[in-house]
Amino acid sequence: MQSFKVGILGATGAVGQKFVRLLQGHPWFKIAALGASERSAGKLYRDAANWIENSEMPDEIGKMTVADCVPDAMGGVDFVFSGLDASVATEIEQSFAAAGIPVISNAKNFRDHPDVPLLVPEVNPDHIELIRRQSFSTNATGFIVTNPNCVCVPLVMALRPLYDSFGIESVIMTSMQSVSGAGYPGVPSLDILGNIVPHIGGEEDKIMSEPMKLLGTKQADGTIKHANFPIQATAVRVPVIEGHLLSVAVKFSNKPAKLSDVKEAIRAWKNPLAAMNLPFSPETALKLFDDPRYPQPGRHAGAGNGMQVSVGRLREGRVFDVSFVALGHNTIRGAAGGAILNAELLVNEGYL
Amino acid sequence: MQSFKVGILGATGAVGQKFVRLLQGHPWFKIAALGASERSAGKLYRDAANWIENSEMPDEIGKMTVADCVPDAMGGVDFVFSGLDASVATEIEQSFAAAGIPVISNAKNFRDHPDVPLLVPEVNPDHIELIRRQSFSTNATGFIVTNPNCVCVPLVMALRPLYDSFGIESVIMTSMQSVSGAGYPGVPSLDILGNIVPHIGGEEDKIMSEPMKLLGTKQADGTIKHANFPIQATAVRVPVIEGHLLSVAVKFSNKPAKLSDVKEAIRAWKNPLAAMNLPFSPETALKLFDDPRYPQPGRHAGAGNGMQVSVGRLREGRVFDVSFVALGHNTIRGAAGGAILNAELLVNEGYL
Amino acid sequence: MQSFKVGILGATGAVGQKFVRLLQGHPWFKIAALGASERSAGKLYRDAANWIENSEMPDEIGKMTVADCVPDAMGGVDFVFSGLDASVATEIEQSFAAAGIPVISNAKNFRDHPDVPLLVPEVNPDHIELIRRQSFSTNATGFIVTNPNCVCVPLVMALRPLYDSFGIESVIMTSMQSVSGAGYPGVPSLDILGNIVPHIGGEEDKIMSEPMKLLGTKQADGTIKHANFPIQATAVRVPVIEGHLLSVAVKFSNKPAKLSDVKEAIRAWKNPLAAMNLPFSPETALKLFDDPRYPQPGRHAGAGNGMQVSVGRLREGRVFDVSFVALGHNTIRGAAGGAILNAELLVNEGYL
Amino acid sequence: MQSFKVGILGATGAVGQKFVRLLQGHPWFKIAALGASERSAGKLYRDAANWIENSEMPDEIGKMTVADCVPDAMGGVDFVFSGLDASVATEIEQSFAAAGIPVISNAKNFRDHPDVPLLVPEVNPDHIELIRRQSFSTNATGFIVTNPNCVCVPLVMALRPLYDSFGIESVIMTSMQSVSGAGYPGVPSLDILGNIVPHIGGEEDKIMSEPMKLLGTKQADGTIKHANFPIQATAVRVPVIEGHLLSVAVKFSNKPAKLSDVKEAIRAWKNPLAAMNLPFSPETALKLFDDPRYPQPGRHAGAGNGMQVSVGRLREGRVFDVSFVALGHNTIRGAAGGAILNAELLVNEGYL
Repeated sequence: MQSFKVGILGATGAVGQKFVRLLQGHPWFKIAALGASERSAGKLYRDAANWIENSEMPDEIGKMTVADCVPDAMGGVDFVFSGLDASVATEIEQSFAAAGIPVISNAKNFRDHPDVPLLVPEVNPDHIELIRRQSFSTNATGFIVTNPNCVCVPLVMALRPLYDSFGIESVIMTSMQSVSGAGYPGVPSLDILGNIVPHIGGEEDKIMSEPMKLLGTKQADGTIKHANFPIQATAVRVPVIEGHLLSVAVKFSNKPAKLSDVKEAIRAWKNPLAAMNLPFSPETALKLFDDPRYPQPGRHAGAGNGMQVSVGRLREGRVFDVSFVALGHNTIRGAAGGAILNAELLVNEGYL
Repeated sequence: MQSFKVGILGATGAVGQKFVRLLQGHPWFKIAALGASERSAGKLYRDAANWIENSEMPDEIGKMTVADCVPDAMGGVDFVFSGLDASVATEIEQSFAAAGIPVISNAKNFRDHPDVPLLVPEVNPDHIELIRRQSFSTNATGFIVTNPNCVCVPLVMALRPLYDSFGIESVIMTSMQSVSGAGYPGVPSLDILGNIVPHIGGEEDKIMSEPMKLLGTKQADGTIKHANFPIQATAVRVPVIEGHLLSVAVKFSNKPAKLSDVKEAIRAWKNPLAAMNLPFSPETALKLFDDPRYPQPGRHAGAGNGMQVSVGRLREGRVFDVSFVALGHNTIRGAAGGAILNAELLVNEGYL
Repeated sequence: MQSFKVGILGATGAVGQKFVRLLQGHPWFKIAALGASERSAGKLYRDAANWIENSEMPDEIGKMTVADCVPDAMGGVDFVFSGLDASVATEIEQSFAAAGIPVISNAKNFRDHPDVPLLVPEVNPDHIELIRRQSFSTNATGFIVTNPNCVCVPLVMALRPLYDSFGIESVIMTSMQSVSGAGYPGVPSLDILGNIVPHIGGEEDKIMSEPMKLLGTKQADGTIKHANFPIQATAVRVPVIEGHLLSVAVKFSNKPAKLSDVKEAIRAWKNPLAAMNLPFSPETALKLFDDPRYPQPGRHAGAGNGMQVSVGRLREGRVFDVSFVALGHNTIRGAAGGAILNAELLVNEGYL
Repeated sequence: MQSFKVGILGATGAVGQKFVRLLQGHPWFKIAALGASERSAGKLYRDAANWIENSEMPDEIGKMTVADCVPDAMGGVDFVFSGLDASVATEIEQSFAAAGIPVISNAKNFRDHPDVPLLVPEVNPDHIELIRRQSFSTNATGFIVTNPNCVCVPLVMALRPLYDSFGIESVIMTSMQSVSGAGYPGVPSLDILGNIVPHIGGEEDKIMSEPMKLLGTKQADGTIKHANFPIQATAVRVPVIEGHLLSVAVKFSNKPAKLSDVKEAIRAWKNPLAAMNLPFSPETALKLFDDPRYPQPGRHAGAGNGMQVSVGRLREGRVFDVSFVALGHNTIRGAAGGAILNAELLVNEGYL
């Protein structure tokens, strides 16, 4: 198997650190460059980063010198992962793509660009062909691929088989989101210890829009026709470290005859990555629990090395057809790990 | 003002302790008898109760001898508050009512009895007239009045003005419930520290049924005609000590023209207790926040001495007409404090 | 009783907000001016302060215009409370004292000034006479009084009777400190949810030095002779909102014959404020629990409206004579509330 | 390498479940029998155990039938791990040893038996020779080996090099202990969310006595001469899931010249297991952090798969020579994982 030299944009931030940790021991990808802001560039990584991961910073990474986030300063990488802040991602990511360096981004800036795949490999792998429509780079090797908001991953993973089997008319949901989703320093402890904050700025808009593109259908002309159903979302912050738990009610377009049909649709879902042997593809990508106590963020967010999406409490509703809860690890599956799986799919499909 | 000697049934349990604490300094009600199970009867209260309230056990209460929960053993009380477990409440509460002693109960056992008021004084004060239909006692002085499940209080308080103004077609909601709702020892810390448990046994059924009676209409024959709209509820346990936060989506029967009409309906709501000067009636019974960060259980559950219901994030929805969050203190407003306010209303109306 | 117009320096910060809340309804002190930094000056308080208290901001305070922290801008106040950051407190507090305005400060800047009382009213009330030695103001009406670090209050309250009865040779202790002690935004939730951080910058030095002045003895010349015993302290941050719990081991100079002598020394301690009727003086200033489960921050930090110091688990040690735990509310007793009690003592003694 | 069939006594409890999880994939030990109380015996493990581990119950274990905790019912095992409650461990463990089946126990019952090794492999590996003095079994193949209380492991790991280099005169310490140490259901969430409980029944006695045996010296006659210095300990419960953090002050017998000598003693310590290639022996058994923020239970309890002991904040003290904090994973290193490492050492030394 080919080996790739990868760079990380925004390497000192919370998402960047997660990329660093998750890529340790990766069989295909080796960190060759760490990019960050002017404030950090030129320093050793161990001096520039306020390491917040639970495992210790890898020694060989700590000794690397942080580069500026410009293509020239990070020369020799095969592609970059981006954990950049939205405030700077547009320009920097474009400059890398323009320089012929593929950008696998966790930032939101290009998620709604019509030619940029918004990708969850198990959900819409065929969307990667959008890359061919991109024109960020003149020499055709640079492109941008994004992964969605951390709530959208467990949501669309759970909805994919339901949408395919029964169609969806509407969704009403509440997402109970962990503090790691706010980065570092993020949520002050005085605001959240033993408390819930019923508002997360900008979050609900993403939850209501990104799934439409993710569940969209590739057209003959190569564009994506978005799905079209309304989502009404409330996003709240809870005192949990990792894992977003969603309480979801769904009204189907074609009401299934019985609840067991809905369970069967989820259990019969075929993971399109199953035969690809991608390192970050979990054994079970979508797990349906029958035990009503599960899933729980504290017990199941880390399942499948944080890449499994867990669903539970699937039951008939009095208003909409079904209610269920869905759980995903927000900083692995919903951020850095999702981007790494995106890169693995791109390797498998010959784009990297 | 008249003074009442009150007894507490189930005085050593979590709800009973809350009754004890809340009644300290009450201008009308004085604790005259403490009833508990055989295991505790005969002991001093301070030896029988594993006191879990934050303030210290009042000395004069600690020195009282716990009685059996039988009318003869608690003689001389004007009425009793019941914090009994559902497993024993039916028989004991009936026996007190039969003995001519009014029972103001927090237990669920008689909530759906057609002749027993299920009462939130601000929501359905006229339901107390159901008492006249009761026949628990032959001498007509004994009766039973109940307060609802702790989630239902903030729910119906918030829905009352909306139901009256626009009618309600459906509700989809998620309740994020604090651990005090499970009593003591209740939820093991290993299950809930930094975690969410997506299931609370039996809770969702109560949330879906009790509001129908609470929002019901008194008929000419004195019975209550229940409201009739479906609620689809998901109840989860969160690592919060006090305060249940509800995320609610409502579809109206008669869609209001604009969001401000909905806000106005809540703000213009007239508290029927406003002129009664009931000690436990909070200055603001229903508060609507405009700040999107509020209400929060950690900051607002205790508002109005735990008797205020707080609403926030009221906004238009893409599926149903509106979404909002509502908060109530589950062990005060949703339990002992609610029962005390019920008793105060009964005094005001001449039933006690 | 005389009434005083008071100003608050640093009124928008965490300590300043606590002053605002605690002074609501104070029988002697009425907030007449709110001072803050340039960034806030000129704004309404409700716009300038990110209110983090649990109760709502009082309306009449929200409507006040924030002033610059200069004497001219806060004219007409009888004295000021200071919740200023240490970075600016020296100059501002001096300027108010120089202008003849007494400063009752929670800042650390003047705590070790030989002529400034470092005051816990129950512990060293006679130290207020140091004021007469001050020369901050030419007209003799301006002065500065400080209260100690939040850990030192429960520590010296507990040590006062022991020091007086048996002398103290050494103390080894660990303080488990709540997140409110770090202000706002303070400790990131990612650092402390379900975690302990074993270091609080600068804290241990204060714990080891301030008690020496607090337990010091007034000399014939009016100066304070510091106590002289070593304290070895470890300060850690724990996921608690309010209340610092100290685990303390003490070696006495004169070993008491038996443990009950030590308990008796604490229980027989006479509160010098007992007869003064100061509004913030709690009924029980120093409580010794026999129940080994107590005191606990979650249950007892708020005792006596946050002004009580609680001690428990007093027992013989194998190395030093005794071990015990002590608890104090860090943002009330250990900060704003302590300063208010200082002001009340100053009123009682004729200094204000 | 030889393979062993192992049984687990108390397999359905919290410690037993940890044994089950930790032994998954163990290269030497394969679970062949699961023993539990009468209530569970005869059921499938998945029906008998209320699984509280974060990872899912292994399928093949779930299908095993739980046996009674008697040697005949668990025939064919090479040895057993015991996670039994102290209330039943004495008789059951003795019966297995008598039947010739070695017992590697986490229970406290035989820890102070003069012929039973109380073993931390890195600290006192030579104590295993005590086995030869045992007479539980007539045929000489049955024996009992124990591991210590969960606080004692990080304590003696940290003290070992200090004791060897400088001798120890006294220790004063506070242990901040996570809720998993209390088993399941264990600590009620109402007692510990945002709180500290300053008492853990029976814990301090173990902390003060077990280190004496662990640091004891093997005598010519094969017995262990206990170490002899006093420990004064306070054990409190904190809202942390895993990891006990100790705040320790030590007075040496022979005061080192400077702090760096103490650090050097720890860093120069040779792990006696280093060359043995034991599967559960972590790469770094004793880690000394220089960063004053570390170690933290939330970030470092899991280091070395939960088998590393971490030390930090080592500094000079004003009363005793040094203060430091030490951290160990209480349910892995301090319980099941420690027992597994004991078994591995016994294999390496030919006792199994």
